Amino acid sequence: MKKKISIAIDAMGGDNSPNKIIEGIKFFLDENKSKNDFVINLFGKEEILKQKIEKINMASDLIKIYDSKSIVSDDEKPLTAVKNAKNTSMWNCIQHQLDGKSDISLSAGNTGVLLVISRMILKMMNEVSKPALAGLWPNQNGMNVVLDLGANIECNDQNLVDFAELGSALFKSLFPNEKPKVSLLNVGSEEMKGTETLKTASKRLRELSSEDNFIYKGYIEGNNIMSGDSNVIITDGFTGNVALKTAEGTAKFITKNLKKSLTENFISRISIIFSYFSLKKFKDKLDPRKYNGAIFLGLNGPVVKSHGGIDSIGFYHSIDLCYKIIKGDLMSEIKKNLRHSKSV
Amino acid sequence: MKKKISIAIDAMGGDNSPNKIIEGIKFFLDENKSKNDFVINLFGKEEILKQKIEKINMASDLIKIYDSKSIVSDDEKPLTAVKNAKNTSMWNCIQHQLDGKSDISLSAGNTGVLLVISRMILKMMNEVSKPALAGLWPNQNGMNVVLDLGANIECNDQNLVDFAELGSALFKSLFPNEKPKVSLLNVGSEEMKGTETLKTASKRLRELSSEDNFIYKGYIEGNNIMSGDSNVIITDGFTGNVALKTAEGTAKFITKNLKKSLTENFISRISIIFSYFSLKKFKDKLDPRKYNGAIFLGLNGPVVKSHGGIDSIGFYHSIDLCYKIIKGDLMSEIKKNLRHSKSV
Repeated sequence: MKKKISIAIDAMGGDNSPNKIIEGIKFFLDENKSKNDFVINLFGKEEILKQKIEKINMASDLIKIYDSKSIVSDDEKPLTAVKNAKNTSMWNCIQHQLDGKSDISLSAGNTGVLLVISRMILKMMNEVSKPALAGLWPNQNGMNVVLDLGANIECNDQNLVDFAELGSALFKSLFPNEKPKVSLLNVGSEEMKGTETLKTASKRLRELSSEDNFIYKGYIEGNNIMSGDSNVIITDGFTGNVALKTAEGTAKFITKNLKKSLTENFISRISIIFSYFSLKKFKDKLDPRKYNGAIFLGLNGPVVKSHGGIDSIGFYHSIDLCYKIIKGDLMSEIKKNLRHSKSV
Repeated sequence: MKKKISIAIDAMGGDNSPNKIIEGIKFFLDENKSKNDFVINLFGKEEILKQKIEKINMASDLIKIYDSKSIVSDDEKPLTAVKNAKNTSMWNCIQHQLDGKSDISLSAGNTGVLLVISRMILKMMNEVSKPALAGLWPNQNGMNVVLDLGANIECNDQNLVDFAELGSALFKSLFPNEKPKVSLLNVGSEEMKGTETLKTASKRLRELSSEDNFIYKGYIEGNNIMSGDSNVIITDGFTGNVALKTAEGTAKFITKNLKKSLTENFISRISIIFSYFSLKKFKDKLDPRKYNGAIFLGLNGPVVKSHGGIDSIGFYHSIDLCYKIIKGDLMSEIKKNLRHSKSV
């Protein structure tokens, strides 16, 4: 019998936890009724969790509850928080993963603390110089993997090459029927553009480009991130963080103004009756909850950070992401990719 | 009598020139019929320009035509193009400005060449270490000035402080009734976030913050660029370029998908009849032609670059921008701001 996919979930992090966490798990169980290939290891205050689970009538032998003595506070600074982090629900998740009892960890808690704890417990992969935060971003043909989204505000060319290997492996694990096409984010598409770091990384990526690894497509500009020609976008954590948040802000600005326009008078409000289903489909496609979950790559095991402010539907999507990453055998894909890289 | 605002326009740069340039000028003349406080100095192939002007019946004593022997090609590299740039329409504009016969220059031609020529002829202001490209960007309450959009891919803290002074002066010249509120683009809003360069620049800007200079609001994240709390956004040219283009790409992605949703079936197409005027207003607000024109700051005179691919309406908006910049006395505002900066 094949080993079950085992997901460690921190039940106590983020706004409105553990309620949204448990409701998110319920959505996941409902969606995957027919499957029997996973188990969820839930860490938090046992009594509260049991009460809540009983209340919504969710008891299932696919969920195991582990009691944790304390909780990482959402607004504590990483360095002070880490000192007191032992035996928190977050710490226990990662420790469980290190012990080989979970394949992946998921938390909606304090990002900085999660990154520090994950790195401390799981340790970096030997072949990787810096870890990276990867995210999903819609494009015209499907989905992009974008990294680094903020783990490292300064990166050298080796970091960027590592990110390309890690990001392509993540893409292959999530979308096994598609080819990863890598691009480096830059201020122009010509070879002469950008910093020396980008030029060196671009040269290395061109050498590594191959059918069974990833196809390197060269530089990409911000306006083409969503065009769908590339699906693995590589950048340093400063630029990636600004780009992602700018896209979020722009989307919010536009949809807010659209909504305002469509409800400002009687005639335009009538239009909503006729376009209801079309607008709903449009809204669904852009729903940020579907892209919830940043993946921490480069450690000896994957860790996923859910947005702290997301609701239960958003949290459901991050559980689904964890499931797909392990189903797609991320760690083997990473090892395959890094083997290519190191043999050049 | 007050001196007239004098705008030097390169009639030959960008796609479909000089037609769109001349039509853009016609829009500007029509919109400003009642004013008599400006003159346009038009540089290009005299015969072609005269023919076109005659054809659309636009002859006006507010336009003076100056013959230029040659043209800067749109796709030539700056360093080779500059050698042959003398006596081009672009060169003649900037030279006219240096000679004190124009207050500002405008071209839709080759950006790299325009930057090099402008810097070569007009020279940097003594007080400024690097020039910057500034642009306009809509926000929830009005308009942002954002810089640098790509003139310098690497910047130190002094450059960022200069950009804040230059950008605030530009804001004051364009929106004399509003106060410039400066923010530094970063990956978080807390003091500890970002690079050492940003931390030092932030400290300096806090010292310079004052009612008659600009109000420094601290760090801003990408998702708040359009929130309207700040209106002068400062960043290095790499990040600024990526952020601007990412916002453009996101806006395009969303409006394309919205259009698709609203036309995909009969029922949703009916809705357009009812929402036509609301959607038109929405589209007008986001129309990129209204934000056409990047302003080159830090030289002994302002130069405006229109998008090369923009149409005549877009070009009209960049003429209007030039007019407003000079009307608002940009160069005096810059000198006032820099005086504050240097006395700290």
